[in-house]
Amino acid sequence: MPIDPAAPLVLTAYAWVPSFVHGLVRDLRVRWACEEAGLVYAEHLIDVRAKPEGYADLQPWKQVPALQEGGVRWFESGAILLHLADKAPALLPADGQARADALSWFVAALNSVEPGAMELGNVVFFARNEEWAEQRRPSLLASLGQRLAPVSQRLADREWLAGEFSIADVLMVHVVMSIDRASDLVSADPVLSAYLERGRARPAFQRALADQLAAFERHSPKES
Amino acid sequence: MPIDPAAPLVLTAYAWVPSFVHGLVRDLRVRWACEEAGLVYAEHLIDVRAKPEGYADLQPWKQVPALQEGGVRWFESGAILLHLADKAPALLPADGQARADALSWFVAALNSVEPGAMELGNVVFFARNEEWAEQRRPSLLASLGQRLAPVSQRLADREWLAGEFSIADVLMVHVVMSIDRASDLVSADPVLSAYLERGRARPAFQRALADQLAAFERHSPKES
Repeated sequence: MPIDPAAPLVLTAYAWVPSFVHGLVRDLRVRWACEEAGLVYAEHLIDVRAKPEGYADLQPWKQVPALQEGGVRWFESGAILLHLADKAPALLPADGQARADALSWFVAALNSVEPGAMELGNVVFFARNEEWAEQRRPSLLASLGQRLAPVSQRLADREWLAGEFSIADVLMVHVVMSIDRASDLVSADPVLSAYLERGRARPAFQRALADQLAAFERHSPKES
Repeated sequence: MPIDPAAPLVLTAYAWVPSFVHGLVRDLRVRWACEEAGLVYAEHLIDVRAKPEGYADLQPWKQVPALQEGGVRWFESGAILLHLADKAPALLPADGQARADALSWFVAALNSVEPGAMELGNVVFFARNEEWAEQRRPSLLASLGQRLAPVSQRLADREWLAGEFSIADVLMVHVVMSIDRASDLVSADPVLSAYLERGRARPAFQRALADQLAAFERHSPKES
């Protein structure tokens, strides 16, 4: 789907970020779900170094993504995905064990896997010069490995977490991608590596990533 | 609502845990939402020290809560709350900005506030004898304070996150309660302290907590 400045869905994303977080900024999840569902959206690009006046009204921590639609404001990538799934049945099974699986793994990505992934990001990138970070790394990698093991087991005989592709996979693939950027946990696991590659190979993911990177390219400080 | 062994909703919880985590185990969230919604449930109590054979089929990390209903299995407290909200409109506004607020703050509790709260639990309780834990504590408290500030601001002129009480408050009150158990961040903030007290004062919360503690009392190792 082309991005359409007149679309009713307006996604707030960063105009530019440093290359080490390209692909990791969470508006990618919303772009990806929109592409999977055939939902057209407009971009509202903001400067990561100088957030707009009043931006906390759209996102309390002044992060991205945020979504606006017909005057209604959403924040948190997980909440936005739930809203998109209400509009697009392709993103979430309607009932039964498939819906239970999709929502259970969707929340698991947010609350059982990503917390360790975020702390790994602190240890490996943001706090890498702190003495505690180096000491913390082994136990954190061990506990994150324990978090990933059931995900890998779940995917040993399935392409996607709930059978069909769903918003659970949008989140989990993206979380696995962030772990892969900061550790060998994913590359050491053939099931998780294959899952990450399956996710990345989806045309909707490719378009979403291309659109995120295109914005960064247009707004690169080197070119401004 | 009395707990009813014949109810179609079956909640898995621990029979007993040590007192320092009383009230913090996450089946409380499900019990609380059921009480708010008038949903009767049965208890499936398991031994935290010896999980039942095959329990990973109900909860991939062998934790609690898990929920079964008519043969369908759910895990993750957040996913179970979304399922209960589908059944009980009192738990989540139906549409408009109120629904967007409730779902956005619901996910914020899971993914923007609780990750730091969980790491605080590691630093203060589980890893307290590790050298890195003491070094990590100041920066973690600082970042968790930044996570809590918008929550406090949001609640400065509201009783509940989305206006009416919702599953966003079930999660956020419980996360705030866990932070209060491990730091002074909540007691130092009059708005958050009052929010925690408002949540705890709800009759549904009181019944949920009493039922969790009653199970622990019945199964206390001292008495067995």
